[in-house]
Amino acid sequence: MDSKSYIIVTGGAGYIGSHTVVELIHHGYNVIIIDNLCNASHEAIARIEFLVRKPILFYDIDLRDEKQLNHIFSSYNIQGVIHFAALKAVGESTKMPLEYYDNNIYGSISLLRVMDKHNVKTIVFSSSATVYGDATRFENMIPIPETCPNDPTNPYGKTKHTIENLIEDLHKSDPSWRGAILRYFNPIGAHPSGLIGEDPLDVPNNLLPFLAQVAIGRREKLYVFGNDYESHDGTPIRDYIHVIDLAKGHIAALDYMNSLQRDVGLYREWNLGTGKGSTVFDVVNAFSQAAGKELPYEVVGRRDGDVLNLTADPSRAKKELKWNATLTVEQACRDLWNWTTENPFGFRIDNYHWKIFNESGTFNYENRLHTVKFPDLQASFANYGALIQDVQYKGQHLVVGFQEFQPYTSDDNPLFGSTVGRYANRISKGSFQIKGKAYELDKNQNGSTLHGGSNAYNRRYFLGPISKHYRDYNTLEFILLDEDGNNGFPAEVETTVKYTVNNSSIEIEYQSSISENSPNDATAVSLTNHSYWNLSSGGTIDGTVIKLASDKYLKTDPKTQLPSGEIISSTQPLTKSIEILPDVSFDNCFIVDESDFSLDTRGRELKTIAEATHPSSSIKLSVASTEPAFQFYTGDNIDMDPIKPRAGFCVEAGRYVNAINDSSWSKQVLLHKGEFYGSKLKFTFSC
Amino acid sequence: MDSKSYIIVTGGAGYIGSHTVVELIHHGYNVIIIDNLCNASHEAIARIEFLVRKPILFYDIDLRDEKQLNHIFSSYNIQGVIHFAALKAVGESTKMPLEYYDNNIYGSISLLRVMDKHNVKTIVFSSSATVYGDATRFENMIPIPETCPNDPTNPYGKTKHTIENLIEDLHKSDPSWRGAILRYFNPIGAHPSGLIGEDPLDVPNNLLPFLAQVAIGRREKLYVFGNDYESHDGTPIRDYIHVIDLAKGHIAALDYMNSLQRDVGLYREWNLGTGKGSTVFDVVNAFSQAAGKELPYEVVGRRDGDVLNLTADPSRAKKELKWNATLTVEQACRDLWNWTTENPFGFRIDNYHWKIFNESGTFNYENRLHTVKFPDLQASFANYGALIQDVQYKGQHLVVGFQEFQPYTSDDNPLFGSTVGRYANRISKGSFQIKGKAYELDKNQNGSTLHGGSNAYNRRYFLGPISKHYRDYNTLEFILLDEDGNNGFPAEVETTVKYTVNNSSIEIEYQSSISENSPNDATAVSLTNHSYWNLSSGGTIDGTVIKLASDKYLKTDPKTQLPSGEIISSTQPLTKSIEILPDVSFDNCFIVDESDFSLDTRGRELKTIAEATHPSSSIKLSVASTEPAFQFYTGDNIDMDPIKPRAGFCVEAGRYVNAINDSSWSKQVLLHKGEFYGSKLKFTFSC
Repeated sequence: MDSKSYIIVTGGAGYIGSHTVVELIHHGYNVIIIDNLCNASHEAIARIEFLVRKPILFYDIDLRDEKQLNHIFSSYNIQGVIHFAALKAVGESTKMPLEYYDNNIYGSISLLRVMDKHNVKTIVFSSSATVYGDATRFENMIPIPETCPNDPTNPYGKTKHTIENLIEDLHKSDPSWRGAILRYFNPIGAHPSGLIGEDPLDVPNNLLPFLAQVAIGRREKLYVFGNDYESHDGTPIRDYIHVIDLAKGHIAALDYMNSLQRDVGLYREWNLGTGKGSTVFDVVNAFSQAAGKELPYEVVGRRDGDVLNLTADPSRAKKELKWNATLTVEQACRDLWNWTTENPFGFRIDNYHWKIFNESGTFNYENRLHTVKFPDLQASFANYGALIQDVQYKGQHLVVGFQEFQPYTSDDNPLFGSTVGRYANRISKGSFQIKGKAYELDKNQNGSTLHGGSNAYNRRYFLGPISKHYRDYNTLEFILLDEDGNNGFPAEVETTVKYTVNNSSIEIEYQSSISENSPNDATAVSLTNHSYWNLSSGGTIDGTVIKLASDKYLKTDPKTQLPSGEIISSTQPLTKSIEILPDVSFDNCFIVDESDFSLDTRGRELKTIAEATHPSSSIKLSVASTEPAFQFYTGDNIDMDPIKPRAGFCVEAGRYVNAINDSSWSKQVLLHKGEFYGSKLKFTFSC
Repeated sequence: MDSKSYIIVTGGAGYIGSHTVVELIHHGYNVIIIDNLCNASHEAIARIEFLVRKPILFYDIDLRDEKQLNHIFSSYNIQGVIHFAALKAVGESTKMPLEYYDNNIYGSISLLRVMDKHNVKTIVFSSSATVYGDATRFENMIPIPETCPNDPTNPYGKTKHTIENLIEDLHKSDPSWRGAILRYFNPIGAHPSGLIGEDPLDVPNNLLPFLAQVAIGRREKLYVFGNDYESHDGTPIRDYIHVIDLAKGHIAALDYMNSLQRDVGLYREWNLGTGKGSTVFDVVNAFSQAAGKELPYEVVGRRDGDVLNLTADPSRAKKELKWNATLTVEQACRDLWNWTTENPFGFRIDNYHWKIFNESGTFNYENRLHTVKFPDLQASFANYGALIQDVQYKGQHLVVGFQEFQPYTSDDNPLFGSTVGRYANRISKGSFQIKGKAYELDKNQNGSTLHGGSNAYNRRYFLGPISKHYRDYNTLEFILLDEDGNNGFPAEVETTVKYTVNNSSIEIEYQSSISENSPNDATAVSLTNHSYWNLSSGGTIDGTVIKLASDKYLKTDPKTQLPSGEIISSTQPLTKSIEILPDVSFDNCFIVDESDFSLDTRGRELKTIAEATHPSSSIKLSVASTEPAFQFYTGDNIDMDPIKPRAGFCVEAGRYVNAINDSSWSKQVLLHKGEFYGSKLKFTFSC
């Protein structure tokens, strides 16, 4: 058991849950997400990882599984629980009440039983203003205070009401229990990053998600249920609250409970609303403005059970939790529009699936294998090393990789498919100097540093990926936080590896920058991908016909393989095309550009640096990059039975070898805080 | 799957559940009881079997175990469910709310899910007037109609309220569901038989069980919570309803739902109360009268939450279900007092335990082994054959028996320990004649009927037993319904076998009578017990020293072993005492009384008919009976390896062999409707 204490967030992959997790982490809490993903997406978790730059502990379990819950509570030091997990569609709840009672009520009973068993007695419960039912039946209950009688009118609301009762009864039976009941009004908006937001399945029940789908063209028009209410424009008034404000309300409740004296319990309900009502037309106008277009709507009859005004009285939360909503409906509409345009279909990503990438059968979210599939091209990428595990073009496997995870961790693995970093290729004597300070790196047996050292990018689990689907391509974006001092390198570096896959190509975009709060503000970065290509149908690369963009390469010392600084030309007609016969070997850094020493080459045009074919198949590989150099390697040193030498060749576009130790070349790799290291590589397949 | 359709009664072993099961069966329903016995006793089920003269299908499972529930619903044709199973103590519910929500709500969710899955959509739900909370807060709500707002004030009431809601929501989502909500007021009383009643654990929460415990001397006095209410005597008014009336309300609800047209659903609440209020003192007076004594009480302060008057308005049930309470509080008090005096400690039976008696590990309630244990004497009895499986006196086993069940079913089993019936010993030519009609019985290879035939009492599962503990003895009473025509015998016969065990003896009382609705009204009955005794420590009976009450025996044909009618004397000094040497064998019917040919000998004095000792131990067995004869048998024909010939001897007290075919003897065994066959046997042990 690690010594940290955690907040468990049930339903943490959902709309409000995911935003709350981000706020929790920003406020210094350690979080474990439990979510059965029955109405949420793993993608939200990958994106939270991106937002908070941390791996997220995530368990895909159902709260009704007491055995698995017990295991989690036994494995970590749990400080409290924020309990979102529930089915939450009012309309659906009237159609399948058993599922609602079972999921929501029994799920909560199970959770509370396990909490009680493990002496975890702090819970923030995600309740709803739905528990009030029609508050207009009572005198002086608009805006609605927490003391308004509860009388929910649908199964969803009844389940929330029952769970509130249970927590209250539990507190009465054992006053050391702490239960904060947060009754939400109408949560809207999304994270300003556009990375997480509401992702309703089927037809949205709520005004804003419906409007967003109208705006993005997924639905024809909005139906306005009645414009004959006694409001300024005739439409009913509700209390819309930005999901970020709502998320912060949970932190306020948690902080409030943590501020109580030890052993002092609590049961208390707090409304989370703004206290300001907006009509349907107010919201339509705000969203139209955010989206920059008028949105079609049709006024139809009133809905059963709708009433004029259901606005919160949020004064109790303001007074006791020192919390109040600060974001406007306009801001929420802008954030929602941003989220919608970035993710028109929410978290549903076509052409994409993932699986856990290990053999033990345990659910280890950190270690996944992601596959993007187009008719001709299918490619798989792992969080481990952000590596390319498989590329199939027209059914033919083109890179060396393993079906299982374990071999990737072997010392004999010559970085099959891996991202290479923080510093690709060799650094002489395993050291460099910046502003008069020398850094000693992790060295190999030859005394130099190869491919970043022993705990380099190829051995790290990247966070994310953000997975997106566009009209004719998909992207997968991984991120890694490489700590200051790892392998001896100064500065904390954030590196993203973004794969763009379409029906015939895989593009890689690298970006590195030094984190804002990094103690050191300069370092050396050089990134590439170490895929071993093989165009033959099952044989070695022998017979491959290859044409390179350059026949000039860095002359190296045969012993150390380090460059002398001299650029020489090959005796072979490499720029014409040669056949790689069994006795032809390369492991050289070819120079594409001798003058441009940019740190970020992404602005340059992709230039084809290698084209390859093999007589045993009709597939042609074309490698392009924005980089000034590339290592061409015929795989002679592969030694990982059953994979034999020359099972694949590498075209590792990147910077000059050992550039950090060369005063004129070092501009290519010397990264300062505020700057970006960047490059693009592209592999294109054709017949 | 059998073709019958069943009503499942959850919690059918409980107070109201058990009474309802009896009423259901009397109304022609087939019943399956599901009960986890967490707050009820298997003993109730054994007693229901006695009351209804039928085996009860009983499953000891928890409703939260969906897998097992599914199995039951898959195995039978289920017509509907009456759902009692719940924790039900208001005070306890405030102390352990999680258990209440889990047991009651989740148990109901699980049940309803399984019902829905199996398309069983009829439920009668055992709810409570507790859902109304304090109905006096509202105007004109006393007597309380079903339309009174619900606002339960304790976890128990909240769980009932939530389950009502779930059933209502389920009906709304699928109008073919039928849910009858029965809201009980204050159930009191017990079954007039005294066999089943309320058995509160710990301190009773309710007035009547508390009063009963005061009356029987288990508690000092009754506390009366306030006598300053505005009633005629100052104590609060409640609506007490006899449990039999309440049970009948369930039949009315079920019948009502069955009378609806196919596919017509229902959700409806009905109060089950009398509509007549009684004060605490009214009830104290009624019970004092029933118990024939003044009961001590002390008036103390009012209880929190108590109000003056909570009387039901039962008019809806009267109008719609055609049901109303007919029994008085006075009747209920009489029945309760009868139950209390018959069962001063409810179903808790000292010196007694049972287990399932098979090897398969499945729960087969029909097949149990019951053990009564005193310091010196321990004896075990099976439902199968109502047999004596084991007798240990001062640690020494005295009868031949098997630890496992299977051997008892073997064809080689010479009736070890069994009850022998309907007709013990031989019937010549396997036939007899009554009123000019000849009956042909099941015959053995010799052409006669031995021990009742092939499907005789020794191969039948007896119902019950009723198990009771008295100051210094315990009783176990089994019952068997032997069908008209079984093995060829005319008339349906009800036979009870009652064992009375104390620290040094086992008495057996047999009784048979012809069922009221039997088509035939006369038959032949002769009962005995076929235990094989062995006083040696592990050897054969050789060396046993025995003294009999008679040396006269029936002369028999050596081939058929049937008596000639002649009574002759033994050449051995049997009335003095002889040693059973290896060459001494007996299998003879000795005559104790040549003149008394009673059918029911129970009024006669027990007479010692045999005394036995063995030199290898100090234990003496004394056999007494009220019977005119006994078969003495030295076990020479035992042939059931590893049990050898002469492993035990039998003293089978009973009637003359083949008496039914002898015009003068037949009075001993000829049973007419309205008469009782009866006898007593007693085995006494000493050192």
